[in-house]
Amino acid sequence: MEMESPEPTRIMVAVNESSLKGYPHPSISSRSAFIWTVEKIIRSNVTGFKLLFLHAQVPDEDCFDDMDSIYASPQDFNDMNEKDKIRGIHLLEYFVGHCHEIGISCEAWVKKGDPKDVICSEVKRIQPDLLVVGSRGLGPFQRVFVGTVSEFCVKHAECPVITIKRKVDDVPQDPVED
Amino acid sequence: MEMESPEPTRIMVAVNESSLKGYPHPSISSRSAFIWTVEKIIRSNVTGFKLLFLHAQVPDEDCFDDMDSIYASPQDFNDMNEKDKIRGIHLLEYFVGHCHEIGISCEAWVKKGDPKDVICSEVKRIQPDLLVVGSRGLGPFQRVFVGTVSEFCVKHAECPVITIKRKVDDVPQDPVED
Repeated sequence: MEMESPEPTRIMVAVNESSLKGYPHPSISSRSAFIWTVEKIIRSNVTGFKLLFLHAQVPDEDCFDDMDSIYASPQDFNDMNEKDKIRGIHLLEYFVGHCHEIGISCEAWVKKGDPKDVICSEVKRIQPDLLVVGSRGLGPFQRVFVGTVSEFCVKHAECPVITIKRKVDDVPQDPVED
Repeated sequence: MEMESPEPTRIMVAVNESSLKGYPHPSISSRSAFIWTVEKIIRSNVTGFKLLFLHAQVPDEDCFDDMDSIYASPQDFNDMNEKDKIRGIHLLEYFVGHCHEIGISCEAWVKKGDPKDVICSEVKRIQPDLLVVGSRGLGPFQRVFVGTVSEFCVKHAECPVITIKRKVDDVPQDPVED
């Protein structure tokens, strides 16, 4: 049993935006997952770990947040995609900034698509030692309607997975929000 | 965000005996879960963590392994339970011995009962920061007949859970064995 391999332990953390505050704010559950990983796993051993932040960005199909845009040509979609990408990058800034402050080495990137598929395919490609996913901790009734990315990843990601539920104090009035 | 709390991160590791070699040998999946935890999480930070080994011991209902015993009085059952307990303690010796060598602080104990219930109720009582459970990584067809403790814990344990699958090289000829 080797206690300290020369390679750091690579932990992928899946992050998304707040459903309450939107971009560039991280969701409560992504923030919880990140803070838990730093406090409980990395602790003071900042050189022993590398964090890999993946933001799976859902394509904006319903356009609720995008009332000012008029889609008249493929170019408009390109512009929107570019804007979305910029927002996603600002979301990543939160995590990268904190890592930089603490001295943890990290990488961060955005991928478009259904989060559960994106996360599992990026795990396959990147092969991290561990995947950390935040979870709203919804009850069985709410889960039926909302669907949970974390459950899917636990079943299908090709690496060990930890699901971090939000603390009771952090849960917003409507627990489906994040 | 506190980077290093004064309290170590408490990781509960559920361990069981080898289905191939019996007591006092640990199962392949318990050993994998333990080695993964040391190599990927604890690394060189031995004072930052405390390992809590729980051996949930299935009451020997079918007596397949106990052909020499004759049950003629409640006292016979007491004797058998005592023997089983001794075996369980020898299983724990494997893990406690390795921790002692590496310098990781640990505690270990045996509880009788259905492993999935025992693990979840001990998590509730002890409140570890993390539960690590080994898994045979069986396919869906085999799982129907065998049932998996790890899946139950991921759903019901009141703390974050990591499931560690055996490495492909470690899987025995019959993957139901462990």
